[in-house]
Amino acid sequence: MNKITLASKFAQIHKHWSPTILAELNGQHVKASKFKGEFVWHHHENEDELFLVIKGSFRMEFRDKAVELSAGDMIVVPRGVEHRPVADEEVEVLLFEPAGTLNTGNVRNEMTKDTLDRL
Amino acid sequence: MNKITLASKFAQIHKHWSPTILAELNGQHVKASKFKGEFVWHHHENEDELFLVIKGSFRMEFRDKAVELSAGDMIVVPRGVEHRPVADEEVEVLLFEPAGTLNTGNVRNEMTKDTLDRL
Repeated sequence: MNKITLASKFAQIHKHWSPTILAELNGQHVKASKFKGEFVWHHHENEDELFLVIKGSFRMEFRDKAVELSAGDMIVVPRGVEHRPVADEEVEVLLFEPAGTLNTGNVRNEMTKDTLDRL
Repeated sequence: MNKITLASKFAQIHKHWSPTILAELNGQHVKASKFKGEFVWHHHENEDELFLVIKGSFRMEFRDKAVELSAGDMIVVPRGVEHRPVADEEVEVLLFEPAGTLNTGNVRNEMTKDTLDRL
């Protein structure tokens, strides 16, 4: 039951697209991630995902639209929905999703992270 | 899959201690709440709770310590742990917890909210 200060956690994250576990509750993980550039198109079969922008902005692309998100904005991507985050500049994002959610969902490539850091 | 802008949601919340559902995912609710004053001591039998401060600051009191939280800080209160949020000034807080979590946990009093607003 200690305070988790997001700014100090993000200051320790130096890689992009590398979700880092900050907390676990009710079988869910809270993760911090820095995005920059284009991620891979993917979906999650059984997991909904929440993205909350802490600093900066990015675009969540769907097959039929794109949503621009800035600090203080969040979005829920329901299971089964293809999406791709794209960040023109570095952005700090908090993720809330079930423990065990794979970052690239149904896709496996060089961006897949099977093991996550914890801070 | 629409953007949820926290500032515009909090601007529509005028009562203190009245958690308002902003989103649901994986059986969990994301709630926005404004705190001011002292809440009631309580615990949740089966639910862990995450508190993330969006604006302002408050103190999470436990029976053996207190934790001061400011904007950008979060804390997880595990199930079974007695706690009481106290805010000297109004604070905006985001909550992540299982759908159906009762705000006053094991206690029932005039602060209990059986029905929550949605925004």
